[in-house]
Amino acid sequence: MTYSQAVLNGDRLALARLLTQVENNTPEGRAALIELFPHTGKAHLIGVTGAPGTGKSTLVNQLALLYRKVKDWRVAIVAVDPSSPFTGGAVLGDRVRMRDLSGDSEVFIRSMATRGSLGGLAQSTANMVQVFDAAGFDVVIIETVGAGQSEVDVARLAHTTLVVEAPGFGDDIQAIKAGILEIADILVINKADRPGVDNTEKVLKSMLELAHPTERVFRHHGSTMRTPFDQTKGEPAPKQDSSSALMWIPPIQRTVSIESKGIVELAEAIARHVAHLHQNGGWVLRERTRLEVELEALMLEALWNQFLEKVPQAQYESLLDKIVQRNISPWEAVEKLLKGRSK
Amino acid sequence: MTYSQAVLNGDRLALARLLTQVENNTPEGRAALIELFPHTGKAHLIGVTGAPGTGKSTLVNQLALLYRKVKDWRVAIVAVDPSSPFTGGAVLGDRVRMRDLSGDSEVFIRSMATRGSLGGLAQSTANMVQVFDAAGFDVVIIETVGAGQSEVDVARLAHTTLVVEAPGFGDDIQAIKAGILEIADILVINKADRPGVDNTEKVLKSMLELAHPTERVFRHHGSTMRTPFDQTKGEPAPKQDSSSALMWIPPIQRTVSIESKGIVELAEAIARHVAHLHQNGGWVLRERTRLEVELEALMLEALWNQFLEKVPQAQYESLLDKIVQRNISPWEAVEKLLKGRSK
Repeated sequence: MTYSQAVLNGDRLALARLLTQVENNTPEGRAALIELFPHTGKAHLIGVTGAPGTGKSTLVNQLALLYRKVKDWRVAIVAVDPSSPFTGGAVLGDRVRMRDLSGDSEVFIRSMATRGSLGGLAQSTANMVQVFDAAGFDVVIIETVGAGQSEVDVARLAHTTLVVEAPGFGDDIQAIKAGILEIADILVINKADRPGVDNTEKVLKSMLELAHPTERVFRHHGSTMRTPFDQTKGEPAPKQDSSSALMWIPPIQRTVSIESKGIVELAEAIARHVAHLHQNGGWVLRERTRLEVELEALMLEALWNQFLEKVPQAQYESLLDKIVQRNISPWEAVEKLLKGRSK
Repeated sequence: MTYSQAVLNGDRLALARLLTQVENNTPEGRAALIELFPHTGKAHLIGVTGAPGTGKSTLVNQLALLYRKVKDWRVAIVAVDPSSPFTGGAVLGDRVRMRDLSGDSEVFIRSMATRGSLGGLAQSTANMVQVFDAAGFDVVIIETVGAGQSEVDVARLAHTTLVVEAPGFGDDIQAIKAGILEIADILVINKADRPGVDNTEKVLKSMLELAHPTERVFRHHGSTMRTPFDQTKGEPAPKQDSSSALMWIPPIQRTVSIESKGIVELAEAIARHVAHLHQNGGWVLRERTRLEVELEALMLEALWNQFLEKVPQAQYESLLDKIVQRNISPWEAVEKLLKGRSK
């Protein structure tokens, strides 16, 4: 029996082994990914991102516990740590996690540290997520730390992206988060029992208005007219989504994850976002974007490998020598290499 | 007269215009880069990275001021803000900067926000740096914020990488910085007048020992034997570099940049690192690595453009549709596209 068959049959050990194969990009791993691909597309992919110290891992644990208890969903967690390109920083978080979730065979946790390029990590994460999706996990939570590109990559991968903040991170956090707010589907203020929580929410709200000018216009519309959908339902529309059936205004959810406070409400906000995506075509759009990014990455890899096969190492090294000596520019070297290939 | 000739003649306005051309990747920009390339390879490239709130920008300003006053060097600053992929967060920092450095025609400041992929930003930054290098700037300081890949990219680009910390960032900073320490040539504890500075230094020191186990062995050797180089100089070897002529142990420098404290000592540490790189061949090695990364990036871009020209958009879209419908896996689609090309 192949890895992929065993995984489809629910073999947990085969799953663990396949994940390692996939992470190491082995031929067996790639073969299994192709076999599993038709079985993907069912899981809800949730991205969770935020600075260290905001309590992301505990929040993810609580959410996973809730999904287990209330929904009986199978939950996978992929913890990505791009801040640690050399040492395996993700391992520490896992220990904390295991305390809460270990022993539950319907929860699967996998952590990854960056190796090689960030592009490689994004690709590797996408592959892991596909394995979990095919293996029948209802929810795959992708957790990442840090600022910048890694978060954008997670947002590209996920259907729903949570950005986690915490009060008392100082004024400077505002600057770094400006861009990140724009990828948030839901904003979480964790550690909301800390002083300064009202101010954090105030700051986030005003930043949201800057980041989502379009929604602001829609919100304005929404205050004077209701959509037919809201009226026929005969019940008050969800608070954060009342403005329009088309636009999503990221709600701000307060949680105290170590005390399990606000987790139910957060799960409800996530469910509303899923409903919203299905309603306005966003789900299909995000799937398509995600798979297009993946196709491009694979295509680039294939083109590069094809190139390496055709250009002798000695020719490449000799050109690099000339560049280092400033006898030829990198752009001219590329011209030469492209010509060499077509011969 | 072409842009590049004007830039080589020291025309500041032409430089500003060329940087815009290069950032926008125009044909004129690319042509100028090729013309300027033989004139590069002279500037000292200094990377400065660290979390927001550590006072990086002020530190960079102070260092630039010192280089101007004491060395009469021409200084370029490239401020990269990958944390803000959508909005231009880098602009705010510039205002602060201009207050200190404006009016000095031998200082040139340029800021960039992320547009498109991170790979694109790294490439764009590398191109900017080349223009400054060719234009005769003695030092190019590349400043970046955030955690993860962007810092690794800066370290690849720079000869000397400064990682800036500040006391009182909480315990969690330790986790995120584990990987980043490994790219540091010099560690700076800025805002060193704050309480907790001794603890920050203690933590950094113990992390350094974890991150550089090899150097630790060398340090042990160094305590019992001196290198010939140190002896012939007839003066005490620099504190941080006394252990070995081959290995570099990242020194920890304390600064209070808003009061200009510790800047002279920091500049001395940087000068020691430059001397160290020249002495052990590290300078040439870093140049070669940097240019190899650049050649690879350009080659990938060229291969991708070649591919896009050969594969009709309709064929690509139709394959993507099939992937979204799970009729074909992305890996099989790549196979098809590669075959289509070779026909």
